[in-house]
Amino acid sequence: MKFSDLDAIFLPKSAALIGASRNPRKWGFKIGLNVIAEKFRGAFYLVNPKETEFLSRRVYPNIRDIPGAVDLAVIVIPAPLVPSALKECGAMGVKAAVVITSGFRELSPEGEKLEREITGIARDHGILLVGPNTMGIYSADVKLHALMVPVAPFPGKISFVSQSGNLGVQLLTESRSHEVGFQKFVSNGNEAMLHSEDYIEYFGGDPETRTIMIYLEGFKNPQRFLEIARRVSREKPIVLLKGGKTDSGARAALSHSGAMKSTRNISSAIFRQAGIIEVEDTTELLDAAKGFERLPVPRGPNVGIITGGGGLGVITTDACELRGLRVPPLTTGLTEDLRKIMPDFWPGGNPIDLVATGGSRVVHTCIEKLAAEPYIDAVIALGVANRARAFADTPQTIFRTLPPEMLQEKTRVIEEGDRRLAELVHEVIERHRKPIIAVSLARPGLKYEEISPIVTYPTPERAVRVLARMYQYYQLQQRKS
Amino acid sequence: MKFSDLDAIFLPKSAALIGASRNPRKWGFKIGLNVIAEKFRGAFYLVNPKETEFLSRRVYPNIRDIPGAVDLAVIVIPAPLVPSALKECGAMGVKAAVVITSGFRELSPEGEKLEREITGIARDHGILLVGPNTMGIYSADVKLHALMVPVAPFPGKISFVSQSGNLGVQLLTESRSHEVGFQKFVSNGNEAMLHSEDYIEYFGGDPETRTIMIYLEGFKNPQRFLEIARRVSREKPIVLLKGGKTDSGARAALSHSGAMKSTRNISSAIFRQAGIIEVEDTTELLDAAKGFERLPVPRGPNVGIITGGGGLGVITTDACELRGLRVPPLTTGLTEDLRKIMPDFWPGGNPIDLVATGGSRVVHTCIEKLAAEPYIDAVIALGVANRARAFADTPQTIFRTLPPEMLQEKTRVIEEGDRRLAELVHEVIERHRKPIIAVSLARPGLKYEEISPIVTYPTPERAVRVLARMYQYYQLQQRKS
Repeated sequence: MKFSDLDAIFLPKSAALIGASRNPRKWGFKIGLNVIAEKFRGAFYLVNPKETEFLSRRVYPNIRDIPGAVDLAVIVIPAPLVPSALKECGAMGVKAAVVITSGFRELSPEGEKLEREITGIARDHGILLVGPNTMGIYSADVKLHALMVPVAPFPGKISFVSQSGNLGVQLLTESRSHEVGFQKFVSNGNEAMLHSEDYIEYFGGDPETRTIMIYLEGFKNPQRFLEIARRVSREKPIVLLKGGKTDSGARAALSHSGAMKSTRNISSAIFRQAGIIEVEDTTELLDAAKGFERLPVPRGPNVGIITGGGGLGVITTDACELRGLRVPPLTTGLTEDLRKIMPDFWPGGNPIDLVATGGSRVVHTCIEKLAAEPYIDAVIALGVANRARAFADTPQTIFRTLPPEMLQEKTRVIEEGDRRLAELVHEVIERHRKPIIAVSLARPGLKYEEISPIVTYPTPERAVRVLARMYQYYQLQQRKS
Repeated sequence: MKFSDLDAIFLPKSAALIGASRNPRKWGFKIGLNVIAEKFRGAFYLVNPKETEFLSRRVYPNIRDIPGAVDLAVIVIPAPLVPSALKECGAMGVKAAVVITSGFRELSPEGEKLEREITGIARDHGILLVGPNTMGIYSADVKLHALMVPVAPFPGKISFVSQSGNLGVQLLTESRSHEVGFQKFVSNGNEAMLHSEDYIEYFGGDPETRTIMIYLEGFKNPQRFLEIARRVSREKPIVLLKGGKTDSGARAALSHSGAMKSTRNISSAIFRQAGIIEVEDTTELLDAAKGFERLPVPRGPNVGIITGGGGLGVITTDACELRGLRVPPLTTGLTEDLRKIMPDFWPGGNPIDLVATGGSRVVHTCIEKLAAEPYIDAVIALGVANRARAFADTPQTIFRTLPPEMLQEKTRVIEEGDRRLAELVHEVIERHRKPIIAVSLARPGLKYEEISPIVTYPTPERAVRVLARMYQYYQLQQRKS
């Protein structure tokens, strides 16, 4: 069987939930609710011999009773019932199955036997098998949220394979406040048939995926994993968080994922050779994936910084130096240019301190001129973007004191400023193919339930860490070519 | 003059804004609005010869016209007018002045002269001088928000002195989503009279301050700073972020704070000798301060972990080991005890994987028994706390699909579970004097506009980093005694 095309899993035209339940404590309820509430684009069938109705939809007693073709089966029934369900799926021409059910290899020798059995059945019937013991899958384009927990990430261009369902869905949940958008996600569970590298290969060829994100504890086939990663990382950045890096962590991973994975540990150097960007922690996993997804990579280490205030410029500069980037002085020419628009008391230098001028003309000019300098490879702008969001988050007690028309006008002006800055930033990124990153506390909230148009991190240190990773990827690419 | 008592700054019974303005673009408007909107507990007077009314309040033409005593003057008028205003303040018996106005030493030699002049006037009249060139102060107990930007942190037990106004107010703003509460804050500006160490000394003696937080770029008097820090850190944890750690960063700091500060850099080892906890970045500054504010310090490196899922347990274990903490195996006795309440397939071990049981009895028992073990010094609980907040953040599209009564009942059950867990955690912390930290995506949002009762971080790595700092503080304390 070839796994190069996992479309039946991620782009099914129809799906069935085997084990749909009206009991809200059961997975058969939660998954059904998620799929329906998020409006899966394909046909969706519910199956359970003991039920007739689920959220006003018909429940079929048996897979055979489904009146149409089924691409994907999502299976939540008890483990001993899975083999026969899979056989029926096979008879119906089902192309892929996500087996949520646990109680297989991770549980006992009997479970391991059962897992071999269902894997065999899947192979015999040409069914792609996800899991078992998975928390499910997500796919933005067809709006499929076949997940055990209610998670609705923003749609985006990142695809994510996680060897921990729990960590995976936690990150998907968190991703909203990080303003990270996902294209596809899979919790790969016990990897009875499909391994991490199969998903990586598929995401590599997926035109909707721009960046691949991985949480990995172990390998079934390290060599194949690294070969595929090496090939895919030439085209698309792969960011990876390794679980079980330390002795105690590896022990915990062994207990978590059972004996099914190779315990052989892979060093960071080997990941690097495969072109993989290994990150430090969960926050960086999301941050870096977002940067790669949305920005061109810097082609050198030199950062130009624009800051609304001195202290933030100082710590941003420290962070750059500590991460192997540089904050070079401005050329005399650029300094003279900027003096024309800056107040007399502008001290000069990089970081460019806006010395509380903050007018949009000054900010725009600084961004344009910095990005145009041949020796500047990236721009970080502190405290100038997404002001409307920050303003909306302002404690409302303060602004409730203002006359409403004053508040309205203020909001209008700020929103207009945001919009114009975002346009400029996009245009400058396109023109110079250099990353421009904003730092702002803004996050999707009440009023702004969407990803902000400028790539933004909430702290300077996180913005710099991403930039350093992107430069690392650029260097890896150069070395290879 | 002795600075040991800065009550006139932080606990004034009355305050005057010198330079109140009806123009919403002026600091005299913004600060006035903040003070009034946040309901300063003392008398608040507005002064400006060109105005008569501000948000329906009377504006006095002159300081002399104020009908009562004034403890604190907040001054925003142009620099050349500050000397005479300070003299009038002196004549009126004003005890302290926060000079927001810039254009002093940071600007020019003339500004430096003017700064010497106002410092002399303040000394002559016994006025405590904050700044000049400060973004202002905040004090929770008297509800004083004399800040240039609209920031309303949660009240708490952390006091914060920042050598960057901009970075300081940024962190105060961010602090709400970190669930960090502040007692007092000062942006110390040019430090013409009062230096960082004066505030540290005052916060050290302040019964309402439990933890001191510092952003520092340079010293006026390094020896005195370290002496005071050494003394204060015996009683209260001091967490510090140093700006200008790298060569480029130090250059940026010089340009930011001007020649006023000693450029002599202090190494991390010297901070450590003074008992100061130096942190890595702005996020850790807030995180660590919160931990010290609200939890007992661990008296050893051994962490017990409770996790809702394997992967999160693995990365938490990695993070502990990488930060010098340990995740020891459970004793046979504890393992046997837990087997009684765990399902058959519980794999045992530390992290304790709740294997999707998640019932509150199991969670409570695990926390109680772990904390009671003599060899366990701290507990981290992943994914079990603050569920109501996380639930309220769930994309509402999903739950809008549910019948309202089902949603209501679900919310009630989750809230009740949160409440009972919080009670248990507080009780166990009191009984064993060991820190118990939760990891949860929950943050103050729409529905829960308050700090959650259990100390919570959004990622395992951040929880572990705090715990490692707290253990570092414990070791520093031990060494000294």
